[in-house]
Amino acid sequence: MSLQTARALVAEDLAAVEEKMTRAVGNVSYALLADALQGLIRSGGKRVRPMLTLLAGRFYPPPQHRHLISLAASIESLHTATLVHDDVVDGALLRRGQSTLNAQWTPASTIMAGDFFFARAAGLVAETEHARVIRLFAKALQIIVDGELRQAFSVRDWGQPKQNYYDRIYGKTAALLELATQSPAVLGEAPAEHEEALRRFGYNLGMAFQIIDDILDFVADAETLGKPAGSDLRAGIITLPVYYYIQQAERRDAIVSLIDGHRTGDEVVDEVVQLIRSSDAIPQAHAEARSFSEKAIAELTALPAGPHRQALADIARYVVEREF
Amino acid sequence: MSLQTARALVAEDLAAVEEKMTRAVGNVSYALLADALQGLIRSGGKRVRPMLTLLAGRFYPPPQHRHLISLAASIESLHTATLVHDDVVDGALLRRGQSTLNAQWTPASTIMAGDFFFARAAGLVAETEHARVIRLFAKALQIIVDGELRQAFSVRDWGQPKQNYYDRIYGKTAALLELATQSPAVLGEAPAEHEEALRRFGYNLGMAFQIIDDILDFVADAETLGKPAGSDLRAGIITLPVYYYIQQAERRDAIVSLIDGHRTGDEVVDEVVQLIRSSDAIPQAHAEARSFSEKAIAELTALPAGPHRQALADIARYVVEREF
Repeated sequence: MSLQTARALVAEDLAAVEEKMTRAVGNVSYALLADALQGLIRSGGKRVRPMLTLLAGRFYPPPQHRHLISLAASIESLHTATLVHDDVVDGALLRRGQSTLNAQWTPASTIMAGDFFFARAAGLVAETEHARVIRLFAKALQIIVDGELRQAFSVRDWGQPKQNYYDRIYGKTAALLELATQSPAVLGEAPAEHEEALRRFGYNLGMAFQIIDDILDFVADAETLGKPAGSDLRAGIITLPVYYYIQQAERRDAIVSLIDGHRTGDEVVDEVVQLIRSSDAIPQAHAEARSFSEKAIAELTALPAGPHRQALADIARYVVEREF
Repeated sequence: MSLQTARALVAEDLAAVEEKMTRAVGNVSYALLADALQGLIRSGGKRVRPMLTLLAGRFYPPPQHRHLISLAASIESLHTATLVHDDVVDGALLRRGQSTLNAQWTPASTIMAGDFFFARAAGLVAETEHARVIRLFAKALQIIVDGELRQAFSVRDWGQPKQNYYDRIYGKTAALLELATQSPAVLGEAPAEHEEALRRFGYNLGMAFQIIDDILDFVADAETLGKPAGSDLRAGIITLPVYYYIQQAERRDAIVSLIDGHRTGDEVVDEVVQLIRSSDAIPQAHAEARSFSEKAIAELTALPAGPHRQALADIARYVVEREF
């Protein structure tokens, strides 16, 4: 399973989204800065979000196709903005194997670059001229920020309930994927039940996506990850594999004393990563991701059959099978 | 001249704006964080922006009064967001005599708090459900961010043209004041020439406002400023008093060698602040601020006479007469 078929279905529109994102940066007065911002756009990963928006927009095409392109570019710009700010927040120095802006620039420049993409995302969503789409965008942005705050306030809270993890990954990933699949339906005036099916598809896909990301942070090697394994744990962020691992009291005590105790440093985390990686916590988390992916696929039955529905199902399967 | 009369005219609405801003924070799950965010709102200065929006909204009241309240709260939230991020960008430790979030929190928390107010501002402007108002909001946000970038890229550029300073203070202050006075006219479907007069009023007022701020940074004492004098110069930011001062070649050479040379540190800047403070650069900059204020007042003649027009003129006079 790969994203090839899905991508091919919307290739032309994806190119238009890319061009729209790139053109915005062209207006920036400073060549050095424009280059850096273009670099951020180019390093933009697999473009899963615009792909979802464009595919979801095929069921009930909006009156003006260019509004769909603006919407997809807006969502990807918002994604870029949060990635850039997360680099400061998490102190990440590597992302996708490339050094982050934060590693090259001052925190101040990184904040401004993130704000640039926030502003651009707001400008692009305003181009849709659709009040409800704009409200959904603003709501997603609030959920995303709330997730960041929630994460900051639950660092090293070893006793937190699983719901806290769910709330955090809703903000981190699922809220934007939900927006990506619901808002094109809103723009196309889809029937309420189809809009709701697409929203739930995006939500469940997003939850699966983030759980797999959190698993890969333990099981993938540093080269594939483009950063050291266990980077969330290093920052004290408790993801689903950690949650499952510490459900056994003796394991929790061991981890807490290792990480909160006197022995800190990279080697300690490496040791804990090995423990979790070879434990039953990984298959437990994986089963949960598959369950979210299946829920996502089940939602699609409400929608008209055809290549676009098939492509969305492919993406939901891809997300839990991927190894990077 | 004070803001008392203007404030009294819209006191009830101002209280509604305040309550709307405060209520948003009430939803934040973490008491510690909610307190900090409430503190940021409370330390919010003179509320010039919502006052302008509410007064400008009296000429052509929008169909739904609550949209005007949301708009004013949105603009003030955006202002708060940029202040919070500026604290990281400028490395400011004191603002309005209070220690900034940055001084108490980590940069990451400060970024998140700023993002919180960005998200809130987007949510509030979306409540107006007015596509053009939302587009103007997004455009202002882009101008603000562009101004930040422009400032970062022109630090210690002693030969920059005056236009660069204008562009920067447009982003820093005038773009938001322009939004504050224009967008209520858009919401109230005012005739195009009245909307344009209000826009220009806000623009010219904003330019005057920021020039005075930049003058006060040299002539006011540290206690009044709530921070050391010359703080912009310390960060290498060239404001209008500096620009005028260095128009004489020998003065420029002296400043450049003092600040860019080997002798750095607080005492050097203190020395330069004294030189500029007692020079003709201050009255030159002041004359320019007064000229912007007069242009603002002249725009008002296009609007229906009455207490609200009078109040706007009072604000434009206050802005150039104020001593803090």
